[in-house]
Amino acid sequence: MNQENLAANIIAMERAALEEWNRGNPSGYLDIYADDITYFDPFQEKRFDGFEKMQAFYESLRGQGSVEKYEMIDPVVQIASEMAVLSYNLVSCSGSDIYRWNCTEVYRQQPDSQWKIIHNHWSFVRPMDMKV
Amino acid sequence: MNQENLAANIIAMERAALEEWNRGNPSGYLDIYADDITYFDPFQEKRFDGFEKMQAFYESLRGQGSVEKYEMIDPVVQIASEMAVLSYNLVSCSGSDIYRWNCTEVYRQQPDSQWKIIHNHWSFVRPMDMKV
Repeated sequence: MNQENLAANIIAMERAALEEWNRGNPSGYLDIYADDITYFDPFQEKRFDGFEKMQAFYESLRGQGSVEKYEMIDPVVQIASEMAVLSYNLVSCSGSDIYRWNCTEVYRQQPDSQWKIIHNHWSFVRPMDMKV
Repeated sequence: MNQENLAANIIAMERAALEEWNRGNPSGYLDIYADDITYFDPFQEKRFDGFEKMQAFYESLRGQGSVEKYEMIDPVVQIASEMAVLSYNLVSCSGSDIYRWNCTEVYRQQPDSQWKIIHNHWSFVRPMDMKV
């Protein structure tokens, strides 16, 4: 697969997982998290390390929240042989709330040639402007 | 270089750049940012793309701020041939202020075999708890 096709595939994988997430289904992401996934989000005190931790966390959120509309802004994929870094801004609309995110996803090709996420970092855009 | 040595080298590169940064000198990071660097931090509306943008931004901060004490917490390096993802929590102490960060750095081996950063994502740990 050339780099352009790989970038398009990575973005399509991310969109598919995100759209499941937006319907309250974490399985889209869990299916493509690698065993050694590391994870940051703005609600946690510490990084989560490993698939089991992520599975327990995501299962606790199953069915919660629903995002009716989202926009993936300027996705960029940076590639070097077996790894690809996807970064984008995300706008998620849930009822009258609008959330603006920075997202980093590092994908790595597994021994079975499938691409999976080994690192995920979510943060809010300019959290000091938010009313949380 | 085996994976253990590479991980130690990546962490040492990061510490060296960070310690320069803490003295108000952005050159430590600029020297190891690749041409295609992408960058998120909690103060920007949008991702920064490319070395020139980062250089202009970091030069505008030269000499500002000083961190007297820092702690790099639980650095993990995930490696696949030409890429390595470093993630850690950082505590920075500046005067009476304490800042707690999530940090992602994606390093890629360049054609000249030097390792450089192609993606950097800084965010605050639990920004909703901060008094900013």
